[in-house]
Amino acid sequence: MPTIAYFGPEGTFSEQAARAARPDHTFVPVVTVPEALTTVRQGRADLACVPVENSVEGAVSATMDALAVDEPLVAVGEVVLPITFSLLVRPGATMADIKSVASHPHALAQVQGWLGAHLPDVPRFASTSTAAAAVGVLDGQYDAAITAPVAVEHYALDVLHTAIADVDDAVTRFLVLRRPGALPAPTGSDRTSISAVAAYQRTGVLAEMLTELALRGINLSRIESRPLKGRLGEYRFYLDFDGHIAERRVGDALAALHRRCQHVRFLGSYPKADPTPTIAGLDNADEDYLAADEWVSSLRAGRTG
Amino acid sequence: MPTIAYFGPEGTFSEQAARAARPDHTFVPVVTVPEALTTVRQGRADLACVPVENSVEGAVSATMDALAVDEPLVAVGEVVLPITFSLLVRPGATMADIKSVASHPHALAQVQGWLGAHLPDVPRFASTSTAAAAVGVLDGQYDAAITAPVAVEHYALDVLHTAIADVDDAVTRFLVLRRPGALPAPTGSDRTSISAVAAYQRTGVLAEMLTELALRGINLSRIESRPLKGRLGEYRFYLDFDGHIAERRVGDALAALHRRCQHVRFLGSYPKADPTPTIAGLDNADEDYLAADEWVSSLRAGRTG
Repeated sequence: MPTIAYFGPEGTFSEQAARAARPDHTFVPVVTVPEALTTVRQGRADLACVPVENSVEGAVSATMDALAVDEPLVAVGEVVLPITFSLLVRPGATMADIKSVASHPHALAQVQGWLGAHLPDVPRFASTSTAAAAVGVLDGQYDAAITAPVAVEHYALDVLHTAIADVDDAVTRFLVLRRPGALPAPTGSDRTSISAVAAYQRTGVLAEMLTELALRGINLSRIESRPLKGRLGEYRFYLDFDGHIAERRVGDALAALHRRCQHVRFLGSYPKADPTPTIAGLDNADEDYLAADEWVSSLRAGRTG
Repeated sequence: MPTIAYFGPEGTFSEQAARAARPDHTFVPVVTVPEALTTVRQGRADLACVPVENSVEGAVSATMDALAVDEPLVAVGEVVLPITFSLLVRPGATMADIKSVASHPHALAQVQGWLGAHLPDVPRFASTSTAAAAVGVLDGQYDAAITAPVAVEHYALDVLHTAIADVDDAVTRFLVLRRPGALPAPTGSDRTSISAVAAYQRTGVLAEMLTELALRGINLSRIESRPLKGRLGEYRFYLDFDGHIAERRVGDALAALHRRCQHVRFLGSYPKADPTPTIAGLDNADEDYLAADEWVSSLRAGRTG
């Protein structure tokens, strides 16, 4: 059975994402998000499922930096999960029995309003993950845990409340990563992720890079800059955009970025969680690139059209 | 004495940043980063100091979103702190006495290598902040805390190790915010922060926005996209760039973004932590804009140059 590593223990949002991505795999909890990447790099798991946007658990910036600089991994899928929480207690307990509540500090911050309304005077405690709080309830350390919905499947606890969220519609995004190899086939609804460091430190370099995408009809879906350590004024950019590297327009744009950058790392082309088509417009279809190539070749061969 | 709110308790990185920014203020610890903003909005403190990049404590994305959508606040300064930690114990204790160590989960993740080398078999516990771990040591709940360097000034604990960091050169960035009012005077080394939502959902809109900056010789220092909740494919962008809104080139660029965007929020023009000059190049100086305005006016008045 292939294996998929995730930030554990059992019952975190990362596990919920891993189960959504690969329900038939064997799940391997590890102690940190970067450790999930290391586990795949060292061949101790086939895949890793890690949060890359708006994570409740684990620092996204450290994860992205680990993807950009260490041994390459590529994404083969993504998962988008709504951020809603469950309140778990020991079997038979009620709201009146709750004298302490625990979760990851970021989860506690995201349900602050709900806790203020429903458990106003109950002391709150931090745990290293939402699932670790559930373990603490089982052990009798706390009376209640704020967890991912999946946690109740692992721990013999009761759900007193579910769908807890101060903010509607918040989501967190995960990538499923593996060691480089054959790419997932294009589906017509794909995303490509890269990290890039511009070749020259000058005003407007990012505008030029994004224009290379825009000129080819490629829609950007995420961008983030990170300063390069010890190199004042230099940045690494993380870019996600629509399309698959098998498409001519995407390959052509990446080639343009390769010319403009001192370093581009391909982080994968994979099916989008949202299946909206990402088909190229008419003047950026593969056949347009092919026809244009043939025209230039014909000019070079001395013909005129 | 003016007051400055920060994510507490006493002894967090946020407090260290607040002290660096306004040493003569009265410091007001609050329980979450968004609460520091609320405290200023409601007039219960004059300033707030909050992490906006690479934070060890508190979720940056939630903070940025709170700045973009609630009642406006503007930045009047920034602080950049190195991320290094201290190991605090009760007075007289040694490494051999440490049977438990606590910190915020993100801090524990950032010193994982150091802990593995120096306290390999010691159980680790999560706290809601690095400073809360120091409180836990005082109370006898834990034997050691991984904290910000400033924590030892508040708690009667001994420093066993300092300058602990798995990664060299990591820094976290804070903004000092207040209610809108008179802007800080330009210093020649300023930064401007905005959030912006493009007017149209179309390919290339961000490339166009960044080109408006680049054409005016304005250097971008940070960019981040955040999906707008419930509006598929629409984004809010957070941009930081060199220059002060008092400069013509910056005002002119912001006016161009105002035309291109459904919403631009000015988040402040303030002195950079790094004092590298951000003076405009020759063709983007205030006098160039003035001369160009006069020329267009003269054409409109029927003169020819």
